[in-house]
Amino acid sequence: MESFEHYIPTKLYFGKGSISHLEESLNTYGKRVLLSYGGGSIKKIGLYDEVMKILNEGGFTVVECAGVEPNPRIETVERGSKLCKEHNIDVILSVGGGSTLDCSKAIAVGAYYKGDDYWQMVLDSRGTSKALPLIDILTLAATGSEFDGGGVISNMALNKKIGRSFTFPQVSICDPTYTYSVSAYQTAAGSADIMSHIMEGYFSRTDDSDLSEAIQEGVLKSVIKNLPIALKEPTNYSARANLMWNSSIACSGIPEYGKLDTYWPCHAMEHELSAYYDITHGVGLAILTPRWLEYILAKDPTITPRLAKFARNVWGLQGDDEAALAKQGIQALHDFFKSNGIPMTLTEVNINEEHFQAMAESACSHDRLQRAYVPLTVEDVKKIYQMCL
Amino acid sequence: MESFEHYIPTKLYFGKGSISHLEESLNTYGKRVLLSYGGGSIKKIGLYDEVMKILNEGGFTVVECAGVEPNPRIETVERGSKLCKEHNIDVILSVGGGSTLDCSKAIAVGAYYKGDDYWQMVLDSRGTSKALPLIDILTLAATGSEFDGGGVISNMALNKKIGRSFTFPQVSICDPTYTYSVSAYQTAAGSADIMSHIMEGYFSRTDDSDLSEAIQEGVLKSVIKNLPIALKEPTNYSARANLMWNSSIACSGIPEYGKLDTYWPCHAMEHELSAYYDITHGVGLAILTPRWLEYILAKDPTITPRLAKFARNVWGLQGDDEAALAKQGIQALHDFFKSNGIPMTLTEVNINEEHFQAMAESACSHDRLQRAYVPLTVEDVKKIYQMCL
Repeated sequence: MESFEHYIPTKLYFGKGSISHLEESLNTYGKRVLLSYGGGSIKKIGLYDEVMKILNEGGFTVVECAGVEPNPRIETVERGSKLCKEHNIDVILSVGGGSTLDCSKAIAVGAYYKGDDYWQMVLDSRGTSKALPLIDILTLAATGSEFDGGGVISNMALNKKIGRSFTFPQVSICDPTYTYSVSAYQTAAGSADIMSHIMEGYFSRTDDSDLSEAIQEGVLKSVIKNLPIALKEPTNYSARANLMWNSSIACSGIPEYGKLDTYWPCHAMEHELSAYYDITHGVGLAILTPRWLEYILAKDPTITPRLAKFARNVWGLQGDDEAALAKQGIQALHDFFKSNGIPMTLTEVNINEEHFQAMAESACSHDRLQRAYVPLTVEDVKKIYQMCL
Repeated sequence: MESFEHYIPTKLYFGKGSISHLEESLNTYGKRVLLSYGGGSIKKIGLYDEVMKILNEGGFTVVECAGVEPNPRIETVERGSKLCKEHNIDVILSVGGGSTLDCSKAIAVGAYYKGDDYWQMVLDSRGTSKALPLIDILTLAATGSEFDGGGVISNMALNKKIGRSFTFPQVSICDPTYTYSVSAYQTAAGSADIMSHIMEGYFSRTDDSDLSEAIQEGVLKSVIKNLPIALKEPTNYSARANLMWNSSIACSGIPEYGKLDTYWPCHAMEHELSAYYDITHGVGLAILTPRWLEYILAKDPTITPRLAKFARNVWGLQGDDEAALAKQGIQALHDFFKSNGIPMTLTEVNINEEHFQAMAESACSHDRLQRAYVPLTVEDVKKIYQMCL
């Protein structure tokens, strides 16, 4: 069991009606609120009105930063940061999914940024740790941004997507009913994201970190159980609640405590897909993960027992032939994603091999892939991309 | 799945050598340190010297509060609180197990207490939430006090043992090697405490909180696996590390998120044993838990499926007869404690029925037992105590 550090100071209110904690939470920090949100889905579900009623009745001054993109852009970080400075904002309220929240985290730091080049701020965390207080209301079970300090920001002009630690939300309000109207496609993609956050750490050389193994297998089995229910019955509270709490835990670091750092290779490879093609993050992960597993199993058969364990404990497969089981587990993962409506080839999401070389080189430009569970070279990554076509 | 709130702002450093974070952690809060510890076991293992070297070389002023008891007393809380006031302490450093830490939490609050009656402070949390910063170095895997805000303080003159929320440690340093020298008896008792913290929440009417079920069963199975190893090989790092991280999670609230509050009935009953007889908390819990399960199963057979699940998923028992399985699971729990050297009757720890009536009345004086998984009356509690003789 390896050493680890735990620190998540976020207060998380989970459950139907948790918005009742919003006013008291905001009041802790002040009356001038930057309200950040995405493309307007929060208006469709009535959440915008619900929030504005609380803000108006509570006497808050509200400045809006609307239109935060999926794969949020550096331009929006800059816009929001300038709004905070201009309007002397006390606290940011993010209403939406992980993209809105990631962007809001960067804005919280950007509000104190003294430079002009906000992309430089994303790239270089030195001297940019001071942040405005941040409260979020979550509307999508996927990234887990509500329970960690990180965020991912895209610079489409440079085809770059960079993750870094910004700031923890002071308060996260997680009401599963706000995810009732999430489309089948986004629900499935979000679930793939949750599963990926777990699998990135599950496949590791460490096998004596008992609690982490239990949490990892527990989250995977819960998503496998609840995603089909949520797709069939979008207002099934229990299914939506399990997916939401799974999402918060999955990216918190807790599921891989005590395990050797695996450097999240699929995320490194997927960030290139999103940076070049702006596809849905969870879909990219769903396409990549089974191919990555297939590739590394062929490259390094010593990992067979871990993959057989995955097949047994996560998918309930049985048998004595470890090598066969390992392959069946990967197939089960692929089939699960497919049966829940996720396009399972890059071709289906209009990606061809044009940029594979550049993307593979970029993915390998930091040392994450070299230090991964099974180390990967540029050639390896290109081959994995090709398997996804 | 029920609503819940999560808030644990503690920074936890886990692993061998984590003490390297001590000096920087203390320096965040100041140079005047109250060092609290127990009966001197930290001197035997060399930890006292290691800590004093860091404190001396770091230029800290140290005031000692030694002799904190197992089941820490209100008198010690008063003594420590007065030392803080007298010496203008900036930060408390607790070195020891859960008792030392619980006492230190009460002292942290007591340092700001304006009254004279410290027992009143324990009883009434109103207006006593301000607390000195607190850092702990853990030497025992048991209570989980390093990862929650609560503490339990005893008033032996009144035969009362009261738990309340005091303050979270700012930093917890959890190095499994510090538990190498813990006696077999205390290792087993600590493990029973960990298991009890889980079982109090496992037995609940809620069965759709997937992650909580996975964590609960995961912790129980990990303790069942690692306790015998730690007893046989006291310096087995992996076993000690798993027990330690299990202990931190078990009492954090996380394992029962989303489950109906079960009000921890065994703890309510055990606190009376400790308050009257000053026995080891974990031993009291180990004696009570199988008898409590046996009693409530007889009282309310509708809980049979949950107990059968416990038998299957935790103990690996198999069979189609749910009622038989339920009983076998309870027996397995009893036998596990016994085989690890825990005295499994009250008679063995010199407790007779003299105070059963008063203890049962006291246990039922708050509404925890009436609202428990299977509600218990004074008569029920007396019968459970009698089953433990």
